[in-house]
Amino acid sequence: MQMPFQLTILGSSSAMPTSSRYPTAQVLNVLGRFFLIDCGEGTQHQIRKNKIGFGKLNHILISHLHGDHFFGLIGLISTQMLLGRKNDLHIFAHSELQRYIQFQLDFLGITDPGFRLVFHPLNFKRPQVISEDDKLTITSFPLKHRIPCCGFRFDEKPKAPNIIKEKIKLYNIPIRDIKRIKAGEDFVAESGAVIPNNQLVIPAPPPRSFAYCSDTAFTETIIDTISGVDLLYHEATFAHDDLKTASETYHSTGVQAAQIARLAGAKKLLIGHFSARYKQPEIILQEAQAIFPNTEAANENETFQIG
Amino acid sequence: MQMPFQLTILGSSSAMPTSSRYPTAQVLNVLGRFFLIDCGEGTQHQIRKNKIGFGKLNHILISHLHGDHFFGLIGLISTQMLLGRKNDLHIFAHSELQRYIQFQLDFLGITDPGFRLVFHPLNFKRPQVISEDDKLTITSFPLKHRIPCCGFRFDEKPKAPNIIKEKIKLYNIPIRDIKRIKAGEDFVAESGAVIPNNQLVIPAPPPRSFAYCSDTAFTETIIDTISGVDLLYHEATFAHDDLKTASETYHSTGVQAAQIARLAGAKKLLIGHFSARYKQPEIILQEAQAIFPNTEAANENETFQIG
Repeated sequence: MQMPFQLTILGSSSAMPTSSRYPTAQVLNVLGRFFLIDCGEGTQHQIRKNKIGFGKLNHILISHLHGDHFFGLIGLISTQMLLGRKNDLHIFAHSELQRYIQFQLDFLGITDPGFRLVFHPLNFKRPQVISEDDKLTITSFPLKHRIPCCGFRFDEKPKAPNIIKEKIKLYNIPIRDIKRIKAGEDFVAESGAVIPNNQLVIPAPPPRSFAYCSDTAFTETIIDTISGVDLLYHEATFAHDDLKTASETYHSTGVQAAQIARLAGAKKLLIGHFSARYKQPEIILQEAQAIFPNTEAANENETFQIG
Repeated sequence: MQMPFQLTILGSSSAMPTSSRYPTAQVLNVLGRFFLIDCGEGTQHQIRKNKIGFGKLNHILISHLHGDHFFGLIGLISTQMLLGRKNDLHIFAHSELQRYIQFQLDFLGITDPGFRLVFHPLNFKRPQVISEDDKLTITSFPLKHRIPCCGFRFDEKPKAPNIIKEKIKLYNIPIRDIKRIKAGEDFVAESGAVIPNNQLVIPAPPPRSFAYCSDTAFTETIIDTISGVDLLYHEATFAHDDLKTASETYHSTGVQAAQIARLAGAKKLLIGHFSARYKQPEIILQEAQAIFPNTEAANENETFQIG
């Protein structure tokens, strides 16, 4: 079974929450590590509801400093304190966020939360790799909003192919050669016969990817960075009738989100950040699907498998 | 039909919310005016869920400055802004709260929310009437917690009795006398006969009252102030097995809440602020009921008629 690479929606509303929708927050589960993307009010409640362990959450990415994307942060930090957290908590955000959180901790009289809050300032000028290890690369990239705002792209690293166990026995392959074979080399047997690599391995499943674009007006500058993603989350605050409002507030319509998905060659589009003016975002979804059929609407507590 | 005097529970958990309980918030509906008492994270979401109009909410009372009692305030204020609120919003709280809210507004770049935030500092030394008009008196009083903390008592003003319409006709009572009769006077008919007041009026229903005590350790200093209330809300964070923890953290057990209700001669007790360590607060409720039978446990979205 493949390790998880999946997105859970914690909040899908825009600035004004409704009785059924929370402000923006999503959790990406990459191979059992959890990345929280934005943290509107009520996020910690939704984390509990979705039975996500607070201890497994070590990275928080905040796209921009509008309240509906970060008001839940201080409550989440407080709860981590109450739970006795010890591990560093990494927060990727506008550099000003550190001042905001520090003020709140000072106000609450907290001199030592018991764990380190490690702030990583985002670059709002150009795309930048903000985290990379042997499993995953995370890239931030500027969106087009009223205030500095970043999207995020998550790329799984390509995995080595799996060697076929029966072939190890059949050709008497020594352990020292397995790494080379996994790296793509053929195998030369004791007899001198060359066994081609593709007879020895099963290719790993293709690496998976996810991009997050919220909040943003329609902008083609992001196309290169998000090109070819398996799942694109793009905000779609408004129906196309409200295009003027969308432009004025630097938000997108469902149609525009779908155009971006098509231009980027995304495999699937997920839309959210719906304005409270629509009781059901059905109209936004239909307008998007007319342009990009493989579109779904985000709803609270839904999980989307990626790739 | 009597005008409403009723309490709706928005949040019943203690500092750490659970998947089914929000941090502390309650709304008291007094004759169609809504008073929000404490405002933990997610309160605005719960206000919507309970279909309470944001515009009818003009008074917010914050008992103390622990995060689980006020983290929801900035989100609520933001939403009021988005809704185009114009009316003053009165906030009764520790004087430091103003600095906290002002910092957040500054941080968000909000110079004018479009309505006035009127801060009323609480007195943490002694009971004090904080609001009074012809319908209602609100009194704050100090509780016993780790930081300055106030409880609140709401007293409906006694209402004038209702004059019996048939008697106006029967005795030919002129309009100018009706006010006097309602104030308790007898009526002297044209014939000189004295009609006793109690034959002319139906007494108004007795005035109703509610007291809110959270967060607090057991303290008899509050008894006088809360005496005889129709409904007493008293925190009951812990079961009696955890009495030591309750004392150390300046919280109460269900047993202690019940003792307070009995000493105060309350008609009914409502307990809440349950620690997340109890999956079901049934044990706390049972322990309280053993001492004060007319006790109920607070649950989200329940409404209690008072009096």
